[in-house]
Amino acid sequence: MALIVQKFGGSSVADPDRIRAVADHIVRTQRAGNQVVVVVSAMGKSTDNLVRLAHDVSHHPHGREMDMLLTAGERISMALLCMAVIDLGVHAVSFTGSQAGIVTDTVHGKAKILEVKGDRIRSTLSQGSVAVVAGFQGISTAKDITTLGRGGSDTTAVALAASLGAEVCEIYTDVSGVFTADPRIVPEARKLSHVSFEEMLEIAATGGKVLALRSVEFARNHGVPVHVRSSFTWEPGTWVVEEDPSMEQAIISGVTHDTSEAKVTIAQVADRPGVAASLFRALAEAAVNVDMIVQNVSTAGHTDISFTVPKDDLHRALGVMEKISPELESTGITHDADVARVSVIGAGMRTNPGVAAKMFEVLADEGVNIEMISTSSIRISCVVSAGDVDRAVQALHAAFDLQNA
Amino acid sequence: MALIVQKFGGSSVADPDRIRAVADHIVRTQRAGNQVVVVVSAMGKSTDNLVRLAHDVSHHPHGREMDMLLTAGERISMALLCMAVIDLGVHAVSFTGSQAGIVTDTVHGKAKILEVKGDRIRSTLSQGSVAVVAGFQGISTAKDITTLGRGGSDTTAVALAASLGAEVCEIYTDVSGVFTADPRIVPEARKLSHVSFEEMLEIAATGGKVLALRSVEFARNHGVPVHVRSSFTWEPGTWVVEEDPSMEQAIISGVTHDTSEAKVTIAQVADRPGVAASLFRALAEAAVNVDMIVQNVSTAGHTDISFTVPKDDLHRALGVMEKISPELESTGITHDADVARVSVIGAGMRTNPGVAAKMFEVLADEGVNIEMISTSSIRISCVVSAGDVDRAVQALHAAFDLQNA
Repeated sequence: MALIVQKFGGSSVADPDRIRAVADHIVRTQRAGNQVVVVVSAMGKSTDNLVRLAHDVSHHPHGREMDMLLTAGERISMALLCMAVIDLGVHAVSFTGSQAGIVTDTVHGKAKILEVKGDRIRSTLSQGSVAVVAGFQGISTAKDITTLGRGGSDTTAVALAASLGAEVCEIYTDVSGVFTADPRIVPEARKLSHVSFEEMLEIAATGGKVLALRSVEFARNHGVPVHVRSSFTWEPGTWVVEEDPSMEQAIISGVTHDTSEAKVTIAQVADRPGVAASLFRALAEAAVNVDMIVQNVSTAGHTDISFTVPKDDLHRALGVMEKISPELESTGITHDADVARVSVIGAGMRTNPGVAAKMFEVLADEGVNIEMISTSSIRISCVVSAGDVDRAVQALHAAFDLQNA
Repeated sequence: MALIVQKFGGSSVADPDRIRAVADHIVRTQRAGNQVVVVVSAMGKSTDNLVRLAHDVSHHPHGREMDMLLTAGERISMALLCMAVIDLGVHAVSFTGSQAGIVTDTVHGKAKILEVKGDRIRSTLSQGSVAVVAGFQGISTAKDITTLGRGGSDTTAVALAASLGAEVCEIYTDVSGVFTADPRIVPEARKLSHVSFEEMLEIAATGGKVLALRSVEFARNHGVPVHVRSSFTWEPGTWVVEEDPSMEQAIISGVTHDTSEAKVTIAQVADRPGVAASLFRALAEAAVNVDMIVQNVSTAGHTDISFTVPKDDLHRALGVMEKISPELESTGITHDADVARVSVIGAGMRTNPGVAAKMFEVLADEGVNIEMISTSSIRISCVVSAGDVDRAVQALHAAFDLQNA
């Protein structure tokens, strides 16, 4: 008998009809001879509505109370889902994060899971029942309710799968898997049947929205196979698994893009040890999430440092930099929110030189100017003008022949 | 320093403006030198909405999951209320029923409180913070979430007040206290400044909706003074306290009415031991809530038994009675849903004979026919035709001079 963890996102349980459809799928999975643990998000946009309510009531909603508030959403969806499963003749029991034994640190709003106890879940499964667990939440070591932040329900599902030794963690969503590019931009984009953890990490980090980055990290660290699939069509989706070294890798698995970040450049800072450290320490203390960082070789003892930040953090970042700029002997700060990042990702890149060159040629042929470049062993990212992003993605997708791979 | 428990009902926290107004009152109470424990219901009609959602999803919502679902309502209101209090500069901490240590039996939907631990609340108060507790909910001895049923938040408040040794339990609602009659029927009805536990029990049992019966029972059993007042005007309301034997009692404190019940009569049942027991055991097993019961003296070895039941239970009651009727040798069952119960209540009745006679005379003068009579030491109730109820209440209120007492 296999143990399967199934996670359903907000759109999968957005209304009573969807909840009954999901219940039907859970019951079929169980009747096929599996033990089933379900992780569920809040219905549709209900978390957004609770956030709005909090801001209607308070200018600065308190972190502990915000978590208490937001966890009401999963409580509602999981109780309704259990009722629907029970109606179909299979017993189901709902568990809050606390009841499921999901112990976190005490950082409200983005707590980290420290431990998954799961005793009540195991006992529920052994009685032939389905366990339905609230995603996105846990109980802190101080016995307070916490939430895990963005992508929290995916993380709950993967953590439970790891702790319970599940055969697979199925992530049900409103798209049918991981694609070679965003199908809204590239209509011929193809669904990947398999992708490695490393590739999925790069995809999630560079604009692929299907899986939250931290849940992929967790899955990789614990070797949990993840199957991303649709709760609307129920067709097989994309498996995220260990790289299989015995098989030849596709050179490029996909093209991603991200328009959520802005580019910042601090010009001609002193090129001496500790300068970059001072800058990024100051930004970190202001809770600015810095992503890509590029520093060029120095000319005449000074160098430019460029980096990207979420557009929401741009104002804060500029404030910090204005303050620290004299200390760094900079000649000025420039920024551009009208940029996008285009990335090509593929494990086969490691053994196939020339991918970067080809990417730059394709962009040049399209007349797309490259503003920043950064690479990892399986990814090349270019920052380009936001107006060029669709054309860049389409050209790269075609040039690497992704529609036919 | 006094410890005050303040309970706010759904209408008191129906929207962000109301929540801020309640927060302001809590902060004033604390700054006046008191320790404050707050019990809060779900916002406005949100519990009704959750019940509707459950019935949209399931034909027979499972009891455990229904409780899990419904407790989301208080979670939302208490978190928002804490945020609003914190905004005003006083720290506040919310607690679920489970976190507050409200331990109940395992009867989902109408659990009984077995124990109030309250350690976290005491520790919160000792740190100078306000404790905000979810009403209506607890955790069962089997570690499952339970709800306390109708009037549950009042019961939570009184139980906490008893356990913590509070000076008073203030019940804030959308009316300004307990009145001598329903002001919608008797415009000159007067707010009572004090009423005894016993009178309040009779008022709650006979149609007064201000306080739930079980919370009054709990308050009486534990000697918790209750102050029922308005969260809209904040004016002093009605104190529900121990009867003060040193003072002369008003003969009548109020006139109540109740149109929620139907009358049922089973005619000419055998007048032998065990007949009534068989009947009411069968009704109890069908979960029919029987209220008033009247049995007259027997003629020729047979007697009529009449009783009232909630209109919602009438169909079920009739089914049970059809089945048991032959065994009881009854000649027939009649019922009337078009009835109302009118009651006069007053502790002074004990020492003032003639109240019943006066009540019957007043009704006779109004041409109101009395269909059933039942009494306690401080109450006389008559079942009359529903069409007569307003006239009956008005005439009794005037005859006992309640507007001037």
